[in-house]
Amino acid sequence: MTGMCFMKNNSNNDRWVVSVDLPMPSLKDNTADVDRLVCALEQKLGITGITADLELMRVIPDMLRRWGYSARCVLFSDGVHTTLTGLLDPAPDDIAMGLAVDLGTTRIVTRLIDLESAKTAGETSFENPQTAIGDDILTRIHHASSTEGLEQLHGMIIGGLNNAIRDLCAQAGTDSKNIHAIAVAGNTTMTHLLLKLPPGWIIREPYIPAVNRPGMVKAEALGINANPMARVFLFPNVGSYFGGDLVSGILFSGMHRLKDTAILVDVGTNAEVVLGNRDWLVACAGAAGPALEGGVAQIGSKAGPGVIDTIFIDPKTKKINFDTIGHKPPLGICGSALLDLIAQLFLNGFIDIRGKLVPEKLREKFEQTDGIPQMVVVPAEQSGTGMPLRLTQPDIDNIIRSKAAMYTILDTITSSVGLGMDDITTFFVAGTFGSMINPKSAISIGMLPDIPLTRFKVLGNSSLEGASLMLSSRAPSKEIGSIQSRITYLELNVNQEFMNRFSAAKFLPHTDRSLFPSVPVPEQ
Amino acid sequence: MTGMCFMKNNSNNDRWVVSVDLPMPSLKDNTADVDRLVCALEQKLGITGITADLELMRVIPDMLRRWGYSARCVLFSDGVHTTLTGLLDPAPDDIAMGLAVDLGTTRIVTRLIDLESAKTAGETSFENPQTAIGDDILTRIHHASSTEGLEQLHGMIIGGLNNAIRDLCAQAGTDSKNIHAIAVAGNTTMTHLLLKLPPGWIIREPYIPAVNRPGMVKAEALGINANPMARVFLFPNVGSYFGGDLVSGILFSGMHRLKDTAILVDVGTNAEVVLGNRDWLVACAGAAGPALEGGVAQIGSKAGPGVIDTIFIDPKTKKINFDTIGHKPPLGICGSALLDLIAQLFLNGFIDIRGKLVPEKLREKFEQTDGIPQMVVVPAEQSGTGMPLRLTQPDIDNIIRSKAAMYTILDTITSSVGLGMDDITTFFVAGTFGSMINPKSAISIGMLPDIPLTRFKVLGNSSLEGASLMLSSRAPSKEIGSIQSRITYLELNVNQEFMNRFSAAKFLPHTDRSLFPSVPVPEQ
Repeated sequence: MTGMCFMKNNSNNDRWVVSVDLPMPSLKDNTADVDRLVCALEQKLGITGITADLELMRVIPDMLRRWGYSARCVLFSDGVHTTLTGLLDPAPDDIAMGLAVDLGTTRIVTRLIDLESAKTAGETSFENPQTAIGDDILTRIHHASSTEGLEQLHGMIIGGLNNAIRDLCAQAGTDSKNIHAIAVAGNTTMTHLLLKLPPGWIIREPYIPAVNRPGMVKAEALGINANPMARVFLFPNVGSYFGGDLVSGILFSGMHRLKDTAILVDVGTNAEVVLGNRDWLVACAGAAGPALEGGVAQIGSKAGPGVIDTIFIDPKTKKINFDTIGHKPPLGICGSALLDLIAQLFLNGFIDIRGKLVPEKLREKFEQTDGIPQMVVVPAEQSGTGMPLRLTQPDIDNIIRSKAAMYTILDTITSSVGLGMDDITTFFVAGTFGSMINPKSAISIGMLPDIPLTRFKVLGNSSLEGASLMLSSRAPSKEIGSIQSRITYLELNVNQEFMNRFSAAKFLPHTDRSLFPSVPVPEQ
Repeated sequence: MTGMCFMKNNSNNDRWVVSVDLPMPSLKDNTADVDRLVCALEQKLGITGITADLELMRVIPDMLRRWGYSARCVLFSDGVHTTLTGLLDPAPDDIAMGLAVDLGTTRIVTRLIDLESAKTAGETSFENPQTAIGDDILTRIHHASSTEGLEQLHGMIIGGLNNAIRDLCAQAGTDSKNIHAIAVAGNTTMTHLLLKLPPGWIIREPYIPAVNRPGMVKAEALGINANPMARVFLFPNVGSYFGGDLVSGILFSGMHRLKDTAILVDVGTNAEVVLGNRDWLVACAGAAGPALEGGVAQIGSKAGPGVIDTIFIDPKTKKINFDTIGHKPPLGICGSALLDLIAQLFLNGFIDIRGKLVPEKLREKFEQTDGIPQMVVVPAEQSGTGMPLRLTQPDIDNIIRSKAAMYTILDTITSSVGLGMDDITTFFVAGTFGSMINPKSAISIGMLPDIPLTRFKVLGNSSLEGASLMLSSRAPSKEIGSIQSRITYLELNVNQEFMNRFSAAKFLPHTDRSLFPSVPVPEQ
């Protein structure tokens, strides 16, 4: 507890736990207990309109008297309304926790945070239980078209979150009743399913969500095990295809406060891109293809023991050197290493500027089975499966389409505001996959623009980090709404110009080599 | 329904039911459904921060599509937060009701109001079921000191309100689900008991309520049968002895908007007085004694068949003329007629300026039993009880103490701001009892100041009327908070000066006759 005390005395005064010492009531100052408390908080925070639940009002008079009119107040806000979600003993034994949630389509990551110290008390992640219904969003939205289906999908997330809460609380030696605030960053559909909002109109033209700014709801109303007064804040969506997870990412990047223009890219199945600075924000999203995540190529594999995560072709010997997770015999290759491999193959002339395998260069590594050109990356004798690990021409074509889509999106959004890639001062790369890619490889294949490597900033799970930020300090609650409302969402029109850009980007690194001066010309 | 249509077309545009025609969503305008609705409402009302319950958000997308993006929205606000409590079909078949509640210690009066036309759809009143626990507030507060006791008292009001709602809805041919807004005006203790807030500190020095501004709570959270989204607004209290019922009364009187100074008096067991104008408001409350309500004098009786409500002494014949409710033989005399009687007795010399019965004048009407002087008001042969109806000297003394207390309170509050009675341009008399008294009689005995009769305005049940006003238009929600915060509550110090004023007021009409020039000098 000494540590906590230390944190308390040095605490950031912008936390959600706010200490107040109220003037004692007297005949000359007979303000009611709740009003006295609310008034002191409003003065301290410089806001108005703080509310408290009836359940809390009922116990405040006794609590204040027991504590000599001092208390630590737990607040939470969606930037519009601020609520008192609990009262703690002025002595620092009582704790208030927050739960940050990255509500991913595939994985859900939760982090328990001490609201007073902003320290992480635990983190856990689990597969989104809705994958039992369908891996992709579309299947789930169709499933949700019946009341029972929606109820089921909703119940699955709540069940998953409650399990995570139980585990995190056990791990941290605390009780779920100590959780007063929950911040959830998810895409538009996941946010709808969590709230049991009908998601059907999201995918039907003109693509209208039920709500973009749900604000705060009671955890109890959703069936989430937490303090009865706890509030759940949902990061607002910008539209059907630009969700609260990205708004959370922008918050974490801080690009909305920068004078210079930055870009934020969440690289995944979808490429979601935000461009802007403290004055304006433009966003778009487009399918970049699942190829980039390495889940589609035959050789591709999710990270795990025996999966190649480092790969390098010796320019002299042309030998493919690699390492695997746990230094086990290789079973597959992870997405980021796959990009490295493509870059290395291209720089060493094993594939040409169209991404086609070059048999003359590959020699014994080249094979053709059932008319499909392919290359052996790891021979059978080195492989953990006893079979050669092969990269096929269709796999490469897939990756090239994906990287071209990514570049085209970046190209389109910057051009739309009259900027060039050089104007981008900071290039934030977000998302689990994004965090692992090597920008140099991504530049070599023309997926990311050829700007100085120092401009790239890897954000990691920016959606979770943004949600954590929301729980660590009060300031973000005031910023989030303005981030959401400032974003101009650019509908990507797949018109002739887009297709021209896309075609030009399907080369390695690009048909216009002058755009990639740093990428060496491969040997012919 | 034609009437409703008519009302709708000519409707006050400040009602809680607001029609909106939303722009249809399109690829160019893909604002989410809820946000689209909220935004339109915020623009129309010129406010921000309108919220909707999750349950409503879940159905809004389908409702809007069914109605072609038109709807009538039911809103409610406590002046700080505005909530969407329902959505109605744009066709006027759907109705939204409000319930105004005067939550009295003794009687509870409820009125059903159409929120769109502001027309009354029914009214009912019932005895506060809590009287089974105790007639007076103090007994109930003591009973509420245990959790079970508080729960019981709370349940009694809720049960009573639910019965009233059932009756009113049956009577109006509507369903309780159509009730979207409830406005409750009660004294501080009754407000606490309705909300199940611990009332114990109200009566212990320094007299601190749990909350003065509870704002809005969900009807559902209180167990009130209404629409699941319905909100209950509680008129704010000023302090332990100045409750929301009086704030509601001020709202109804409109004195807070007047340029000239007015006074509002709620005459009952307590005399509650507010003095002020659009710039300032001063209030105080003091025990005026139950004598004024006629419940204490032996002869006194609550209004009912056979109760004297009109009484007049012929100045020539000295005969006591009276009439009763239903013209039945007299059983007793109601409070207002009792004041008339005292005034008449005084003006005809039957009691002297100290209020003492004058045997020489009363002659055969005078009696003395067990040493108690008394007079026969109605002889046995005329009485409905077969016994004479008598007024005793202690009864008169009680009334004189009460009227003196009332005048002293009025005198003290006006003096405290440096005003005289002549400065009072309008004298609002509120409360059921207050509505029935004859100001001329009240002046004759020196209970009310001697100002022109035209300045007296009888408000009736101002607490119920204020609550009705709150449901009839949106404007009051913005005024109520400022009324409450502007009131300076004057603690009546029963010091030497107060006692001096009180002693002087114990004469008929007053020791200082110059204060009552209109009252004729009685014959000696």
